[in-house]
Amino acid sequence: MKAEILSIGSEILSGRTIDTNSAYLGRVLQECGIILLRKSAVVDSLEEIAQALKESLSRADIVITVGGLGPTSDDLTREAISEVMQAPLVLKEELAERIRELFKRRGVRMPEINLKQAYLPEGALPLENNVGTAPGFVLEKNGKIIVALPGPPSELISMVDNFLKPFLKKKNPKEVILYRTLKVVGRPESYVEEALQDLMAPQGNPSLAPFAKTAEIHLVITARGDEETARKLVEDMERKVRERLGEDIFGVDDEELEEVVGRMLRERGLTLAVAESCTGGLLGYRITKISGSSDYFLGGVISYANEVKRDVLGVNEEDLKEYGAVSEQVARQMAEGARRVIKADLGVGITGIAGPTGGTPEKPVGLVYIALATPNETICQRNVFPGDREMVRWRSSQTALDMVRRWLLKNPRS
Amino acid sequence: MKAEILSIGSEILSGRTIDTNSAYLGRVLQECGIILLRKSAVVDSLEEIAQALKESLSRADIVITVGGLGPTSDDLTREAISEVMQAPLVLKEELAERIRELFKRRGVRMPEINLKQAYLPEGALPLENNVGTAPGFVLEKNGKIIVALPGPPSELISMVDNFLKPFLKKKNPKEVILYRTLKVVGRPESYVEEALQDLMAPQGNPSLAPFAKTAEIHLVITARGDEETARKLVEDMERKVRERLGEDIFGVDDEELEEVVGRMLRERGLTLAVAESCTGGLLGYRITKISGSSDYFLGGVISYANEVKRDVLGVNEEDLKEYGAVSEQVARQMAEGARRVIKADLGVGITGIAGPTGGTPEKPVGLVYIALATPNETICQRNVFPGDREMVRWRSSQTALDMVRRWLLKNPRS
Repeated sequence: MKAEILSIGSEILSGRTIDTNSAYLGRVLQECGIILLRKSAVVDSLEEIAQALKESLSRADIVITVGGLGPTSDDLTREAISEVMQAPLVLKEELAERIRELFKRRGVRMPEINLKQAYLPEGALPLENNVGTAPGFVLEKNGKIIVALPGPPSELISMVDNFLKPFLKKKNPKEVILYRTLKVVGRPESYVEEALQDLMAPQGNPSLAPFAKTAEIHLVITARGDEETARKLVEDMERKVRERLGEDIFGVDDEELEEVVGRMLRERGLTLAVAESCTGGLLGYRITKISGSSDYFLGGVISYANEVKRDVLGVNEEDLKEYGAVSEQVARQMAEGARRVIKADLGVGITGIAGPTGGTPEKPVGLVYIALATPNETICQRNVFPGDREMVRWRSSQTALDMVRRWLLKNPRS
Repeated sequence: MKAEILSIGSEILSGRTIDTNSAYLGRVLQECGIILLRKSAVVDSLEEIAQALKESLSRADIVITVGGLGPTSDDLTREAISEVMQAPLVLKEELAERIRELFKRRGVRMPEINLKQAYLPEGALPLENNVGTAPGFVLEKNGKIIVALPGPPSELISMVDNFLKPFLKKKNPKEVILYRTLKVVGRPESYVEEALQDLMAPQGNPSLAPFAKTAEIHLVITARGDEETARKLVEDMERKVRERLGEDIFGVDDEELEEVVGRMLRERGLTLAVAESCTGGLLGYRITKISGSSDYFLGGVISYANEVKRDVLGVNEEDLKEYGAVSEQVARQMAEGARRVIKADLGVGITGIAGPTGGTPEKPVGLVYIALATPNETICQRNVFPGDREMVRWRSSQTALDMVRRWLLKNPRS
């Protein structure tokens, strides 16, 4: 089966709205084994929409329209579909009732104009909107399928997940495409590619493809087939990749590093404190993105100025002078200071030169020392990170989290 | 003049890459007074690209293609344009030389395949690529203009800014569209809309339209006309808006709040420290996004646990017990503690319930106290922010920065 996506609305063309909807639909179609031929965006003009719709229908089995289902005179998707498919608009009493009900619940009088949303092309099946007032619909006629979805992303996603995905899978039951992403941290791309060279097969089934993110590599496994076959192919490939990369894989699919580290700390009943210089609070911010992080994260010190490193964290003044604020000695004392001052089991210290200014030949931009203080030992890692200020800061927070993760893996519960 | 955009590449259709390029081009075209009729994306197939190109050329004066200019056999834009415009591909010796030079500088042998990028349709004018190897080009023939741009956003943006914008302005000199964004903080949308009601004219010239962001409102002024007229219209509208909103406007166009506050602190020679609970480091992270922020930002304490509020910041234990960690009393003592412990001129304290759990009827999710301690006084603001955990945290950091900004405006240099 072949599909096209047609986005309707001047705000997409003007670039004021980035079109994330059609990217989402693209992934869903792929997952359902449907080939996406083309996607287009047109202005809010009856003529333009109808013309584009005709062209898409001449090439594809399914055309998915996005947007133009609102109540105003600018919203012309219903009219265009009605015209092209020769299906006059008819009032759906149950939709009218639902819209009236919605306004009543909000305690607002329904503007007459909103009744427009209760009209659908004859023969169309309405799709419930759990989030807004605009119902979507699907119209099957003359061997073609038109699916009309609302433009606001939250309404579209809910309608796609609840209705469109099951509908498309039923229409195209023979083949599904399954994905799994394995996330790697702490290794350069070249290392990962070399380790997996013979498994990489961009066009194979299953396929394995690497995507380099900032200080993270995502390995995407894709497999086609009936549901059972595809799942087995994904699992086999995952096993092979894990055999080679082991602890370098920190998570799967949507898991974030701060979430994985947080879960490990909670399971072990350990607490964490941070001392941040060049990251300025980023590490603490990331750790506390996770709801419930107060179970293991106690707090920290943002020691941007040297006086704060000395007076609050107790870094030795002589060492600051002799080795400089960006040095192994200072990173270690920051980590130990965080642990002591905040009274935590583990302390992290980060000090470096994020740039763009402040680098020297001996201490270039990107030089970052990261230390981890534990009850038994303090370890320290010297890094020279590539990229701009924000990249260096992000890589620093990422490496710090990974040091905690790897230390927890190497030091099983005593 | 009318234009269409044609994006080439399966990664755009699969949704793996969000198409930000065509949004950027949409804004540029609007700025140049050119009407964007339609944008489409097609797969890497010579037949599909050529077909879409023909259709676009039948409707528009200018067709801009994006992507498919690389050296591999998947890159078919050159071939499709050559076929549709009946302009055979010819070797441009100066391009071949430049590509060889690039590889030499990198110390890498040039793969023969890369020479493909030196072939352009006959009559095409090459566009220099300052960032990558793929040259773009423009081909004018039979009253139509085709512009071919590379897909990587950094290469495309540089080529558009350096070449395409001046080129289009010359082709369409009568009318330009100018924009200016005035950024408002610390006021609800309804207040701003009421204050500007009679100036709002979405279709006027100049036009004024509000865009609500998280804890920020962007007022976009747009004006059409020759360069001189449009500039005057924008300036007049800006003056009117500023008369009504005054200090509520913190910046223009790309300026960020942390940048504006940083500049004010530097000009006044004042230093800042933070004490963060529910924001977990976000405020410090935002302040230190600005290179050179060490001139005014000394550091802070992430006091996530109550013991850290007490032991490091000196918050009174009785007050913690009696009023709770999320209270005006604690926020004030956190701000004062940050100022004292970090030895700064100004101290900010943030304590609140970011959610999704931890709320009670008296202290709901979103309740955040923010205090600012100065040499003369400590002020405190009680907020109940809407939105999810990340929204509440962002609004907290935004409000804290705005409190510092407004205090600096109200307390001129003594």
